Amino acid sequence: MSVFASPAAFAAALADLSAPDAGAIAAARARQAVLTKPRGSLGRLEEIAVFMAGWQGRERPAIGQGRTAIFAGNHGFAVHGVSAFPVSVTAAMVANFAAGGAAINALAGAAGMDLRVVALDLDRPTADFTAGPAMSEAECLAALNAGAEVVTPDLDLLTLGEMGIGNTTAAAALCTRSFGGSAADWAGPGTGLDARGVARKAMVIESALARHADAPNQAFETLRRLGGREIAAMAGAVLRARALRIPVVLDGFITCAAVAPLAVQAPGIVDHCLAGHCSAETGHVRLLARLGLDPLLSLNMRLGEGSGGAVAVGVIRAALAAHAQMATFDEAGVAARL
Amino acid sequence: MSVFASPAAFAAALADLSAPDAGAIAAARARQAVLTKPRGSLGRLEEIAVFMAGWQGRERPAIGQGRTAIFAGNHGFAVHGVSAFPVSVTAAMVANFAAGGAAINALAGAAGMDLRVVALDLDRPTADFTAGPAMSEAECLAALNAGAEVVTPDLDLLTLGEMGIGNTTAAAALCTRSFGGSAADWAGPGTGLDARGVARKAMVIESALARHADAPNQAFETLRRLGGREIAAMAGAVLRARALRIPVVLDGFITCAAVAPLAVQAPGIVDHCLAGHCSAETGHVRLLARLGLDPLLSLNMRLGEGSGGAVAVGVIRAALAAHAQMATFDEAGVAARL
Repeated sequence: MSVFASPAAFAAALADLSAPDAGAIAAARARQAVLTKPRGSLGRLEEIAVFMAGWQGRERPAIGQGRTAIFAGNHGFAVHGVSAFPVSVTAAMVANFAAGGAAINALAGAAGMDLRVVALDLDRPTADFTAGPAMSEAECLAALNAGAEVVTPDLDLLTLGEMGIGNTTAAAALCTRSFGGSAADWAGPGTGLDARGVARKAMVIESALARHADAPNQAFETLRRLGGREIAAMAGAVLRARALRIPVVLDGFITCAAVAPLAVQAPGIVDHCLAGHCSAETGHVRLLARLGLDPLLSLNMRLGEGSGGAVAVGVIRAALAAHAQMATFDEAGVAARL
Repeated sequence: MSVFASPAAFAAALADLSAPDAGAIAAARARQAVLTKPRGSLGRLEEIAVFMAGWQGRERPAIGQGRTAIFAGNHGFAVHGVSAFPVSVTAAMVANFAAGGAAINALAGAAGMDLRVVALDLDRPTADFTAGPAMSEAECLAALNAGAEVVTPDLDLLTLGEMGIGNTTAAAALCTRSFGGSAADWAGPGTGLDARGVARKAMVIESALARHADAPNQAFETLRRLGGREIAAMAGAVLRARALRIPVVLDGFITCAAVAPLAVQAPGIVDHCLAGHCSAETGHVRLLARLGLDPLLSLNMRLGEGSGGAVAVGVIRAALAAHAQMATFDEAGVAARL
């Protein structure tokens, strides 16, 4: 059974976003106020603990079952030479994920997350979005549902990532369509383009935007026309996680761009999301600002695969450990409230 | 047997700093170049792996035995009202460390580090540095050695931290003495001073600097006159770790300030150090810049106790996991070099 049976069902889910548990937030805040430290002195760690409490619905949130989900797809616009690498690399890297040899295998393992890799019709790239929609309605729904399906109710945390040669092009197109500006504002070098390559990429994006200028500015249509399977899957996963009140860690530029069309329609869609890191890819700083997200890490990473989000899990685990394990002033018998 | 038997022995150690293992660095760099990712795409994680390789002297560094060492001390200048809290809080927090209830207990645990807490003569604060040296030669040597003694040769990584009511005052004095500027440039609110309090703190520091203006500008003398026991202990630990080629993660403003007098004399002293985070305390950004350190995290933390350094261990573990576990292009059979 599909989570999103139709474009209308997707739109309905986006129009009916869950709220965090106000009682758990209040309880977590009250706990933070009596832990043996000066108030606010753990900075972001305190905010993370309260955020996680709200979405997990308990005063002391924890990550028992955490999952890193990676989606892979290929893109029809790759024929325009917008990447330094052949599309065959997408499948090769998926094989590397399966064999356990990629960065995300090591990073998800270090973060104590299980890893799900979903390859989406790699031998059947999306259509060239400069000529028409990247996906049919059925294809886009299938991708959204593939994303939703990895989000099982047992999860305490979900981190997302992607692999798809050329997909910074789709991401920049989604950003331009969602938040305005020119393609050049959002297009960056991706995995190794030079300045000429970036300029060509921006032209391809402008061409696609012109082709779809008359399309309804609506999340499903934007994803379908300008996105890709791995991108729609991440959007589906974010929306499904929201219904299940599972907190999500976004990764870099492409993962965040997957949420952009949803955020135009429902800005609160990122309320259950943390930005794992700020990528070195040009448009990511601007995109994070438009989404209202402050990244946990800034380590000059630009790999994708969910790598930045997985590293951020370490910070979240630290935040939850302090929140759950610290003594209160009463317990510690520290007389002076700090 | 003391590691630093005399001020001259300390100066000699500072004049004879070890170098990282060039062969291990070259091997780690060569490995990074053939791992299945675009070159440089893991950003700081790649740099961390190479840094750790150099100091651990092996192509694939690891953290089997990691230690977080926290030093606590009390300060004679506290009589001038430079903190929002009474000095009794230092001992109360040390008891909290011992009972396992402080932030650093949770954070060191989450980071897989063992925790050593060394309380240094808490019932005998240092002398008031506005009237004379904070410590005698013997007292300063004892503190340096207390720091050196926690650095055992089995360690793969050492992170440092401190507790000492008022010690941002000593830290700002050390920075002003070491790097110039006025006390107001380096003095911040610490744990909750208001603007009047910060101004008073700066005056106390200026008074101390005037009192010691004629002292030799030399690391041992600066630590002895303007530092404190917990600060000298951290300096001793950093210098001892260098002799043993053990990489060190510094914490916030006070931890970094402990290294400042050493850096004036031997700028390379921080070569085996990573800055765990950038603290919210005013002077830390400036201090990191003077030390030439780029912090791994910036989470608006300002607790001390080594808390920021402990959280950073998660990033380091992630870096080492990727470096050690990823497949090479040859192993993965990925034809196209990314």
